[in-house]
Amino acid sequence: MTAVFEILQKDAAGRIGRLHTPHGVVETPTVMPVINPNINTIPSSEMHQFGAQILITNSYIISRKEVLRKVALEKGLHHLLDFDGPIMTDSGSFQLSVYGDVEVTNEQIIEFQKNIGSDIAVPLDIPTPPDVSYKRAEEELETTLERVIAAREIVTDDMLLAGPVQGSTHLDLRVHSAKSLSKYAFDVYPIGAVVPLMESYRYAELVDIVISSKKGLDPVKPVHLFGAGHPMMFALAVSMGCDLFDSAAYALYAKAGRYITVAGTTHLKDLQYLPCNCPVCSAHTASEIKSASNSKELLARHNLYVTFAEIRNIKQAIREGNLLELVEQRCRSHPSMLSALKRLYKYTPWLERLDPFSKSTFFYTGPESSKRPEVVRFKERIGRFNLNGKILIRSKSVKGEATYDHVLNFKPPFGAYPVELSEVYPFNAEIPGEMDPGAIGVALQNVIELINKNRNGVFYLNLPEQYTVHSLYENLKKIAIPLDEMPNENL
Amino acid sequence: MTAVFEILQKDAAGRIGRLHTPHGVVETPTVMPVINPNINTIPSSEMHQFGAQILITNSYIISRKEVLRKVALEKGLHHLLDFDGPIMTDSGSFQLSVYGDVEVTNEQIIEFQKNIGSDIAVPLDIPTPPDVSYKRAEEELETTLERVIAAREIVTDDMLLAGPVQGSTHLDLRVHSAKSLSKYAFDVYPIGAVVPLMESYRYAELVDIVISSKKGLDPVKPVHLFGAGHPMMFALAVSMGCDLFDSAAYALYAKAGRYITVAGTTHLKDLQYLPCNCPVCSAHTASEIKSASNSKELLARHNLYVTFAEIRNIKQAIREGNLLELVEQRCRSHPSMLSALKRLYKYTPWLERLDPFSKSTFFYTGPESSKRPEVVRFKERIGRFNLNGKILIRSKSVKGEATYDHVLNFKPPFGAYPVELSEVYPFNAEIPGEMDPGAIGVALQNVIELINKNRNGVFYLNLPEQYTVHSLYENLKKIAIPLDEMPNENL
Repeated sequence: MTAVFEILQKDAAGRIGRLHTPHGVVETPTVMPVINPNINTIPSSEMHQFGAQILITNSYIISRKEVLRKVALEKGLHHLLDFDGPIMTDSGSFQLSVYGDVEVTNEQIIEFQKNIGSDIAVPLDIPTPPDVSYKRAEEELETTLERVIAAREIVTDDMLLAGPVQGSTHLDLRVHSAKSLSKYAFDVYPIGAVVPLMESYRYAELVDIVISSKKGLDPVKPVHLFGAGHPMMFALAVSMGCDLFDSAAYALYAKAGRYITVAGTTHLKDLQYLPCNCPVCSAHTASEIKSASNSKELLARHNLYVTFAEIRNIKQAIREGNLLELVEQRCRSHPSMLSALKRLYKYTPWLERLDPFSKSTFFYTGPESSKRPEVVRFKERIGRFNLNGKILIRSKSVKGEATYDHVLNFKPPFGAYPVELSEVYPFNAEIPGEMDPGAIGVALQNVIELINKNRNGVFYLNLPEQYTVHSLYENLKKIAIPLDEMPNENL
Repeated sequence: MTAVFEILQKDAAGRIGRLHTPHGVVETPTVMPVINPNINTIPSSEMHQFGAQILITNSYIISRKEVLRKVALEKGLHHLLDFDGPIMTDSGSFQLSVYGDVEVTNEQIIEFQKNIGSDIAVPLDIPTPPDVSYKRAEEELETTLERVIAAREIVTDDMLLAGPVQGSTHLDLRVHSAKSLSKYAFDVYPIGAVVPLMESYRYAELVDIVISSKKGLDPVKPVHLFGAGHPMMFALAVSMGCDLFDSAAYALYAKAGRYITVAGTTHLKDLQYLPCNCPVCSAHTASEIKSASNSKELLARHNLYVTFAEIRNIKQAIREGNLLELVEQRCRSHPSMLSALKRLYKYTPWLERLDPFSKSTFFYTGPESSKRPEVVRFKERIGRFNLNGKILIRSKSVKGEATYDHVLNFKPPFGAYPVELSEVYPFNAEIPGEMDPGAIGVALQNVIELINKNRNGVFYLNLPEQYTVHSLYENLKKIAIPLDEMPNENL
């Protein structure tokens, strides 16, 4: 049997993968448009044209409505939705979280998903919201684990089964949840109950939860960030290793007159101009959409176009090895996203273990770039340099370099490395002419460490003013000799 | 007579305007697609559908080719190009810069532009390239000024006339050029000969040149950044007060297989996925475009869609008052653009005089945001606060605030301001939970200045650790009393 999930290409903790389902192969990362079987904003049969490869719908809603249940059981889910690609089904967990109760058992809803021919089934887990007591989160997690493991025993055919990770905002519970589930062979691991965090822009905490969950999961398994459908945060989520998203947002936002962009959400009423070139926005003006009789449908179509273009953008970035550059750009869209970026890089040691060793050119985008895996990796390897004799550290070639035993180039945010490596990744980095003090500080600290580990060598410095005015340069001068302060005869 | 240019809305030094021409009104900022009368990549008559309101073509090429000249003189430029909107014409200056000579005089080409019915004519100025000697730049500028002023005397009808600003990379010559031209009533002021800078990613120097030119020009006149057609830098250029761009890039890049995005340029051959949702990219995959027989035309269409969507994005940002947020996002696309952003904010005092006083919420995007006009404006007004008695500076409400004569809220990158203003622009700023040391430093320095200007008051501090670990907090503690160090009975 083929593995259910194959990884084709990696960048940071993100990857392009292939998920094999009974109704075909899905290339990840991707978004599953949520189809409400009662409301047909955009027909499922048209979803392919936006780029959708897989849909998600709610088996509980189908099971509760006679007319839907009958068709689904007799002719199958794919007939009901008029879609011949893979379809994932949710279980009623969301209704459970909203109404406190559902009229179905875990076993019943799993059987129902099997019977209607779902491609990926979800057990009736408990989506514990953020900020509840540890005790409640722990108790609900135990119930979730029991149900999810019970479901694993029921599902023995080709249908894929999701094992949702819960635990509220208690990170150790997320790790525990993920580790417990990993003992069983689930096909997809949703990270659950994060919607309230996203709705209140608590993206930094979302980072904590995703990475805690990922730490407990087998890295070769696909992860679904359940309820995440806004393209603003896709790049960030993919960089942490999320592979699947689901979007009810395209339709719900449209219903509320909200226009999605990769930089956030705008109300249609506030738009004088359409900042987009999708087929809808290229064919209409803002005022045309506002007054159109099918205004909400046009909005929903725009929202889908934007959503899938960002997925392609992310996949292209993974191919090119500049996913983190894209993440750093996207995280400027809102200060809460910038908080999330800063939080992401608190986990750089974890990212570093997953990040490929060679990528395209490193582009510096701001102080946060100093915390990328490549920079941390360089610092960890400073101990490997073994230097003796006269060593020059400079940032561009200077006269008389041939008289030194070693010449090192200085470039923030790295530090000093052999000039021979200047064109090698990541030292071929593109950096702005004027660097942030934080990035200069990281590089100077690395040089100090390098010198301290090679005290047999005599180090000479020739650095421009923007680096020598940094307070750490004073420390560096105690262990190395600035060239401009040397008497001429020594040159 | 209506003014040729009206300004409708402003943000930073950017504006939405209306340029009145003989063939109709153009809403700026906008891009003029360059039409090569010899090569019809995309028919002019289709340009409206991309969002083009005005075209630009080359009157020298038309004048030199019998078949074109005949039609243009007999039936008019608009008939020749099959476009009924405004058309600007270049003069052969570009050919002059490439071949060193042209077979036409300034007077002849101006007359020709009149005779074919151009909407905006350009004199035969000398586009002095970057980095030439001061002497050469100065001499060529004098010739340019003579010709441009001579043209002004020739053009007395409705045709608009452009007065190009030259001066190479010598900033004082750019200022001189702009000031000299401003004595004459030109309708549009192109900033010339900047293409070589853009081609070599010298965006920081482009900022110097644009702002030097703008400083010499009447701020109510429209400015054309001649040769600028890449949407990556439109937001930056608009924020400095550029109103018109021209794009030959859409076609030239397509010819070379280059795919434009707001984050840069990619070779079609390197694209596995199309990171865009324009009608071309929504209807095709990357490999379909690669193998299409009309591959270059599809690329050109994509390039135009991207170009005009960014113009709408910028106009919407001006409407919403968040143009600088957009600029800060766009300037993360390449380290040279980040350099340009840093350079832009060296001119904040100039920007501040043009920037509206109230806008939408200030979004912090990184250390550069600490240099925005609002922050500088706040610093300039610190002297206006007159405080006596017991004054509390805190970053969230604390117990016993009622016992103070004044309560100030502390928020980087501003500093301390009366709590009553917390919901007022710009103090309603959204900032990340964890702030950059640079932004904290700006705010602490402003508080020190505030206290020093109000030495009759007694200042108390209650700030969280991320602010108190900053080195400037030590200085602050010398003139204010940290609350946590006070004995309880004083609270």
